[in-house]
Amino acid sequence: MSDTATAATPPAARRAGGRDGRRAMRGAPQISFPTLVREIPTYEILPDEAVELIHDESLKILEEVGCEFRDDQAPALWKKAGADVQGTRVRIDRGLLMSLISSAPPEFTLHARNPERTVQVGGRNQIFIPMYGAPYVRDLDNVRRYGSLADLNNFHRLAQMLPSLHSMSSICCEPMEIPVPKRHLHIINSALTYGDKPFMGIVTSKERAEDVMKMAGIVFGDSFVKDNTVVVSITNCNSPLVWDQTMLDAMRVYASHNQPIIAAPFALCGASTSASSVGAVAQVNAEALAGVAFTQLIRKGSPVIYGQFMVTVDMKSGAPMGGTPEAAQMMFVMGQLARKYNLPWRTSGFHVGSKLNDAQAGYEANMLMHAAILSGANYIWHVAGWLEAGLACGYSKFVTDAEQLVGWYKYAGGLKFSDFKEAMAAVREVGPGGHFLGTQHTLENFEKAFFMPSLMDFNSFEQWQAEGAKDHDTRGREKAKSLLAAYEKPKMDEGIAEGLADFIARRERELPTSIE
Amino acid sequence: MSDTATAATPPAARRAGGRDGRRAMRGAPQISFPTLVREIPTYEILPDEAVELIHDESLKILEEVGCEFRDDQAPALWKKAGADVQGTRVRIDRGLLMSLISSAPPEFTLHARNPERTVQVGGRNQIFIPMYGAPYVRDLDNVRRYGSLADLNNFHRLAQMLPSLHSMSSICCEPMEIPVPKRHLHIINSALTYGDKPFMGIVTSKERAEDVMKMAGIVFGDSFVKDNTVVVSITNCNSPLVWDQTMLDAMRVYASHNQPIIAAPFALCGASTSASSVGAVAQVNAEALAGVAFTQLIRKGSPVIYGQFMVTVDMKSGAPMGGTPEAAQMMFVMGQLARKYNLPWRTSGFHVGSKLNDAQAGYEANMLMHAAILSGANYIWHVAGWLEAGLACGYSKFVTDAEQLVGWYKYAGGLKFSDFKEAMAAVREVGPGGHFLGTQHTLENFEKAFFMPSLMDFNSFEQWQAEGAKDHDTRGREKAKSLLAAYEKPKMDEGIAEGLADFIARRERELPTSIE
Repeated sequence: MSDTATAATPPAARRAGGRDGRRAMRGAPQISFPTLVREIPTYEILPDEAVELIHDESLKILEEVGCEFRDDQAPALWKKAGADVQGTRVRIDRGLLMSLISSAPPEFTLHARNPERTVQVGGRNQIFIPMYGAPYVRDLDNVRRYGSLADLNNFHRLAQMLPSLHSMSSICCEPMEIPVPKRHLHIINSALTYGDKPFMGIVTSKERAEDVMKMAGIVFGDSFVKDNTVVVSITNCNSPLVWDQTMLDAMRVYASHNQPIIAAPFALCGASTSASSVGAVAQVNAEALAGVAFTQLIRKGSPVIYGQFMVTVDMKSGAPMGGTPEAAQMMFVMGQLARKYNLPWRTSGFHVGSKLNDAQAGYEANMLMHAAILSGANYIWHVAGWLEAGLACGYSKFVTDAEQLVGWYKYAGGLKFSDFKEAMAAVREVGPGGHFLGTQHTLENFEKAFFMPSLMDFNSFEQWQAEGAKDHDTRGREKAKSLLAAYEKPKMDEGIAEGLADFIARRERELPTSIE
Repeated sequence: MSDTATAATPPAARRAGGRDGRRAMRGAPQISFPTLVREIPTYEILPDEAVELIHDESLKILEEVGCEFRDDQAPALWKKAGADVQGTRVRIDRGLLMSLISSAPPEFTLHARNPERTVQVGGRNQIFIPMYGAPYVRDLDNVRRYGSLADLNNFHRLAQMLPSLHSMSSICCEPMEIPVPKRHLHIINSALTYGDKPFMGIVTSKERAEDVMKMAGIVFGDSFVKDNTVVVSITNCNSPLVWDQTMLDAMRVYASHNQPIIAAPFALCGASTSASSVGAVAQVNAEALAGVAFTQLIRKGSPVIYGQFMVTVDMKSGAPMGGTPEAAQMMFVMGQLARKYNLPWRTSGFHVGSKLNDAQAGYEANMLMHAAILSGANYIWHVAGWLEAGLACGYSKFVTDAEQLVGWYKYAGGLKFSDFKEAMAAVREVGPGGHFLGTQHTLENFEKAFFMPSLMDFNSFEQWQAEGAKDHDTRGREKAKSLLAAYEKPKMDEGIAEGLADFIARRERELPTSIE
C-alpha cells in the first residue's frame, strides 16, 4: 500500500506548512490548494467487456449514422482526413477516429497568472471549477434576480478567496446589464483581475473567442500563451450528433492557439438521447469523440478535454434534473471510457435541480460529487454556486459547495497510514474504558486527521439555538458576506492592467451595443 | 457482464407488475420493495495487504490488550473456551477468535409477520432500516419537542407506508411520557401492530429483552420463533474495548433464542478511538469481532451482524459529527473487513449532525449513503428521520430519506443492458438533430429507465413559485401529513392482537412505574 501520509491534509497545508494549511482549511483568503492528486482507486461500475461493448456501439454510430458538422469548413477538413463526407454529414471510420484521439495529450498543465495557482489536468489530478452560465443569481438576501457585473465580480472574489476552488471559471453569472456584443470583455476582465487562478474562455462567436485570446496574451504575454495552456473553453454538441458552426468556430480559434476546449455534449437523457442510460452513454461518447477528433484535425497534439454533461429529464416539466442515480451511474461509465482513451476528462460536481440551497440541493450535490471523485474525473466543473439546473448562481450555495470541497480533498486524499503505529500505541496506552483526548497522538494528530468544517454546524442544540437557530443556507449567506468584506484584490502588474483597460476601451468602441 | 434488465426498476415493480410497481415508486401505501440485491461492484478503497495489516493489528489488540467483559458470567464462558482471563479482562488468541467468527452464518432470512415483507440479510443483500433512539422529534410543524407514543405510532405508520423501508425499526423516537420500566412494551407493540415489516428489539435490560421475545412469540408463534430469525437488536461496545453487563445480558437473551444482535461499537473517533481513521478501524474491528465471537460462545451458529457506527468528533463542541469524508472512508474499510470475515454487516446511512432537514443534512446524508451502498453494507440503519446526531427524529427527514432510498434502489440495481440494442436502434431512427421523445423505445422505457421522485422538485421556477416556492423540508412535512392521513393499519389476527394486549396489560401491572 502507498503511504499517503500527506494526503489526509489538503496539499496546501503541506506546501504552506501546518499553520498556514490549517488557516487554509478554514477558508482564509489568499490561500489556495494545489491540484488534488487522487490517492484512492477509481470505481469501475462496469466490467471491461461492457465498456468495450459501449465503445463499439459509439464507433458504429460514427461509422454508420455519422455526425453533422454544420459549417462551411469542417466537412472539407474531415474529407481531407479521409472521412466519408456527404454535405455536412461526416461518417468517421474507427481507424481514423482512434488515430486522431490518440494524438491528444493525456495530461497538461493549466497555467494561472499567479504561478502558485497553476494546476495539472489529466491523470490522477482532479480540479474544481465554479459554475458557469447562470442568467440569475440567488443573492445575499436570498432573492432571485438577474445577474449583474457586480455579482460576477463578487463570485470571482469568492472564487479567489475559497482555497478549494482551482479556477475563476468565467461566466459564473451573466452580467445582464451589459450589451451582449460587449459582455465577453467584462466577463473575462472580471475573471482575470478579481483573481489570479486559471480562467475559462468564451465560445459564443469566433470574434469573442479571439478577443479572449488577445486578453490572455496581454495578461500572460503572447509568447507564453503560444507555448502554454492558459484558458479552457466549453463546446457543447447539440445532441443528438450535431456540432454547429458556433461551436466549431470556437474549436478552431482555441485549438489553433493550442488551448483546450472541452468537447462535451449537454445531454438531456430521455429527450436528446434515448431513454436508456447505457444508450445515452454510447451516443454521448460518440459525440464527444467526434469533437475531440476534430480538434486534432485543426491542430494535431493540441490539448483537449473529453467530456460529458448528462442529466435525466423530468417527465412532468421536461426540465433537466440534477443529482439522480442515473447521472452518477453514467458518470462512472464515462470515466471508464476516458481512461480507455487516455484522455483528460470533464464532468460536473454539484449541479442540482433544486431552486434553493436546501435539503434537495444537498442530496443532489453529493450524489454527483461522490461519482465525480470516484469516477476519476479531472476537470470537475460547476462545483460552486449552481442552482435550478444552472439557471441561477447562489451566493450561499457557492460557499457551501466550496467548504464541501475541502472535505472531498480529504476523501480523495485517501487513508493515512503514516501514524498507524502511533495510533495503535495509543490504544495500548489508553486501554479498555479510557479515552483518547489527552494522548500525545491525539494532540498531535486530531486537527489534521479529520475534516473540521466551520459552516456545517455540529454544536450542541442549545448552542446552535443560542446562535440564532440558523439553517445552513443562512449560515452560507453570512459566510459569503463576511468573505466579501475581507476580500483583497490580487496584485497585477500596472502595465498589464493598463493594457487590458486599453484593449477593452478600444473594443468597446468598435463593437455594436446590440445584436442587429 | 450480467444483464441486469430487471434492476433499473425497484424489484417491487417487477414482483407486483408494471402499474403496481410505478405506484410503489410514488410511495403509495401497502407496497413494499423486497430485499435490494446489489448488482454493482463494491468499492475497495484499500488494497488487500492494507486490509490484512488492519486485521492483524485488531487481532493483536485482542491478544495483547484484551477486551473487558464486565459481567459475572462472560469471563467464565471465555475461560472455558480457552481465552486468557484475568478478572474481567479477556485476551483472545487469534485461533480461538477466528474459529468462533467462522461459525456465524454469512447470511440469514429476517422474517416479517407479513411473509411478503420478509427480507434477506448478508451477501449481496442490502436492506434499509429507519432510525432508532431519538428522545426528541422535529414535528409536522417543524417544532422540536420530546417524542411521544403518538409520534412513535406515526413513524411506524410512515415506515409501513414507505416502500423503500424494510423494517419498522423500533424506538424511532422515545415515547417519553411512558415510564421507563414499561416503555419497551409500548414501543414493541407499536412496531408490531402499526406495520407488518421486520422489527428491532430492546436491549436496556435482560427482563425487557425477554419481554420482546415473548411478544415476538405471541405474534409469530413460539415454535416459529424457535427456528427462525424475527428480531434484530443492537448491542454497542463502550469504546475502547468494554462490553458491559447490559449489553452482555442482551446478547445472552437474543443469541440463546437464535436471534441476531448487531455487535457494533458506537465510536466517537478522536475521543473513544485514536485520532487516526485506520487506527479507529483497527480498534472498532477488534471490539466488533469480540462481540461477534461472544455470541458464538452463547450459541454456536446463531446469526449475528458485525457492525460499526463511526463518526468523528467536533473539536469545538465534542459532539458527534455525521456525513464527513472520514466516516465514508472508514465505512469502506469496514466493508472490506466484513467480506474478509464473511459476516453480514451493519452500517448507517442517512445519519447527520444537522439540526434541520436543510442543505447540511442533504450533503451529510448522501456522503454516508453513497459509502454504505458501495461498501456493500447489508443492514443499512438510521436511513429515515435521523437529525442532530440521533437526538431527534424528523417527520420531514423521514419521508425525504425514504424517497432518496428509491433512488438508491435504482443506483445499486446497476445499469440495464437488456434494451441496449433498441436504444441504439432509436439513435439510428432519430438521427442527428432530432429528438427522442416520440420514439417507441422512449415511450416504452422512459418511466422505468430513470428515477422520477415526486418530493424533489424539478418543475420550472415559475411553476415552483406558483406552488408556493416551498423548500424541500416544507414539502417533506406536507408529504408526511398526507401519508399519515391515508394510512391504513395492516391486518392482524384477532387472537394475536388480544394475546399482545393481554400480555401488555399483565406486564403493566407487574412492572414498577419508576426506576427505584
